[in-house]
Amino acid sequence: MTTQSPDSNYIGVDVSGTTLSAALVSAQGRVVERREAALEPDGVAQQVARAVSELRDAKGAGGVAGVGVGVSGLVSPQTGRVVVSNDLPALARGDLRAELSQATGFDVLVENDANAAAFGEFTAGAGVGSRNLFYVTIGTGIGGAIILDGRLWRGDSGFAGEFGHITIDPDGEECVCGNTGCLETVASAPNIVRRTQERLQRDSTSSLSRLGLKRDFNASDVAQAANDGDDFALLMLERTGRYIGTAIAAVINLLNIERIVLGGVIMEAGDLILEPIIREARKRSFQPCFESTQIVAATLARDAVPVGAAMLARDAVNDVA
Amino acid sequence: MTTQSPDSNYIGVDVSGTTLSAALVSAQGRVVERREAALEPDGVAQQVARAVSELRDAKGAGGVAGVGVGVSGLVSPQTGRVVVSNDLPALARGDLRAELSQATGFDVLVENDANAAAFGEFTAGAGVGSRNLFYVTIGTGIGGAIILDGRLWRGDSGFAGEFGHITIDPDGEECVCGNTGCLETVASAPNIVRRTQERLQRDSTSSLSRLGLKRDFNASDVAQAANDGDDFALLMLERTGRYIGTAIAAVINLLNIERIVLGGVIMEAGDLILEPIIREARKRSFQPCFESTQIVAATLARDAVPVGAAMLARDAVNDVA
Repeated sequence: MTTQSPDSNYIGVDVSGTTLSAALVSAQGRVVERREAALEPDGVAQQVARAVSELRDAKGAGGVAGVGVGVSGLVSPQTGRVVVSNDLPALARGDLRAELSQATGFDVLVENDANAAAFGEFTAGAGVGSRNLFYVTIGTGIGGAIILDGRLWRGDSGFAGEFGHITIDPDGEECVCGNTGCLETVASAPNIVRRTQERLQRDSTSSLSRLGLKRDFNASDVAQAANDGDDFALLMLERTGRYIGTAIAAVINLLNIERIVLGGVIMEAGDLILEPIIREARKRSFQPCFESTQIVAATLARDAVPVGAAMLARDAVNDVA
Repeated sequence: MTTQSPDSNYIGVDVSGTTLSAALVSAQGRVVERREAALEPDGVAQQVARAVSELRDAKGAGGVAGVGVGVSGLVSPQTGRVVVSNDLPALARGDLRAELSQATGFDVLVENDANAAAFGEFTAGAGVGSRNLFYVTIGTGIGGAIILDGRLWRGDSGFAGEFGHITIDPDGEECVCGNTGCLETVASAPNIVRRTQERLQRDSTSSLSRLGLKRDFNASDVAQAANDGDDFALLMLERTGRYIGTAIAAVINLLNIERIVLGGVIMEAGDLILEPIIREARKRSFQPCFESTQIVAATLARDAVPVGAAMLARDAVNDVA
C-alpha cells in the first residue's frame, strides 16, 4: 500500500494515440507537470514506466500516491487487462497492468481512454458540478462514456458507451462493424473529410478546394474553415451536427442525464458544431428529458485522458485505504 | 415505523389502466392473493386504500410490512408526487402518496408503472439472476425502465427510459411529441393496428380482413393471427420487430446491459416477435456488446406492476430499518 495525503499527487498517462502524454496531477485534478514523447507501438510498458519515473523525480512532485493509464482499447473491468486494441494490438497480448505495476512499484490502474477522458472532464473540466454525465469524443473514431452517481458505468462486460455505432439512418452507409447507418459512418473525423471531399467535387467555391489542391485536408481544417466563415464548411458542420444530435437524443431519452460533454477534434469548431447538435437533440428528444440536460463542450482538450486516469487512480487508492 | 420479518408480506397496486389490480406479495415476490376492480378516474386514493384494506384482512395475509403503487405517469424521485399523468390527470393535482399514507397508515411508495414492472420482472420474473436490466413494455404507449447494479436508474429528474421516443427513422412519421420517426410512431399497439389496416387495403387475403369486417381489431388480434399462421400478420410482426430491434440496439450499445426483458401486449406473439427483434438488434449493435446481452420475454404478465411495486416497498422498508 502506498502512503497518501491530501497533498499527494497522481500520475496519469495517455497512450491512446501516436504520442505518449503523461502528467503529474494534484489531488484536485490540476496539472502540475507534463511529459510528451512519440509513442512506439512495442514496449509500451517500458515507455510508460520511463515517463512515470521522470515525473516522480520532477521538481515539486512531492509524494506520488497512484498511477493511472488510459489506453485506446477495451479493458476488462474484472482483470484490468486490455482485451482488444486496434491502435496498439500488442497491448492485448501482454498484461500492461502487471508489467507496469512491477516496473513502477504502484498498483497501476488501466482504463479505456474514453472512460478516462470522461472522468477527467467530470472531476476537473466541463463536468464539474454534475453527478451524472455522458461524454462523447469525436475523432478518428467516436467514443462515449457514462458516469452515473459519480462513478463510471462500464457496463456488464466493460463495453458501455459505444456511441459511434448507434444507428441514425437505417438505410445509411455501410459501417466497418457490419451495420448500416451507424453515426460513425458520417460523423467521425475521416468521414467528415470524406463527405466534404465528395461534395467539393460538385462545388469548388470553398477555401477547402484551394487547400485540397496543396495537401490532403483533415477535420481540423474543416473546423478552421468554418471558423473563418467558409459557407461550405459551415454547411458540412451543420449536417454533421444534425447526425450527432440525433444520437445524443437517444442518450437523453434513455438516461435522462444531467450533463453531456462533447470533445474531440470536431469541437475545434466551437459553437458552429455545438449549436446544430443541440438544435437536433432538442427536436428529437422527449421534452422533459431534454430540459434537464446541459450539452456543453469539453474544456480539458488533450489533458482529459491524463487527468482522468490520474483521478481514477486517486479514487482507487482511496477506496482501498 | 412498521414491524417486519422475513415472513412479512407486501401489498402492490397497479393503477396504470382501466383496472385497479392489487396483490398481496411475499417477501420473495410470490403472489399470495389478488384483487381486481374497475378503476374510476376520480378518487383513486380511496379505491387503492379499499384494496389495501381488503388484502390486509385476507386469510393468510400475516403481517403486511409495506405498500407500493405503480401509476401511469411521471413520478418525481425527490417528492414521490405524480408530476404528470395522461391517463389519470387528477393524480397530478393531488398528492397520492400523502393521501394513501394517511388512509392506510403505511409510508406508501409511489412509482412509475414501467419502473415498477421492471422491478417486478427483475425480482421475480424474467430478470431473475441478472444485476443489470433494461425493461421495455409495448402497449398503448411504449415504456422503458433501467435497473443498474440491482437498483432502478430513474435519471436526473425521474424520466429515464423514454424508449418509445428514440428516433429509428429520421425521415419517418410525425410523432405526438413533435419529433419524426420515433419508435412509437410505428411500434406501439395502436400504430401496429394502423399500419396493419393501411396495408390490408391493398391485400385482403389475411384473416384480419375478415375479422375487420365484423369489428375493430387490436394488436392482440394481430398477434393471435400470427400465432395461427396468417402470413400477413407474420409480415407485420416481422417489420415491427425490426423497428423495435433497431432501438434495442441503441440500448445495447450505450449500456452494455446484461439482460433485456420485453413485455406488453405485442409479446403475446411470443417468438414470432422476439426473433425479428433479436435479429435486428444483433445486426445493429456492436458485436461485443450484443454478445453479453440476453434478450428475453417478460414472464409476469399483468402481475409485473403489483409485484414490482410490492418489492420496491419491501426494499424501501429495509433501507430505513
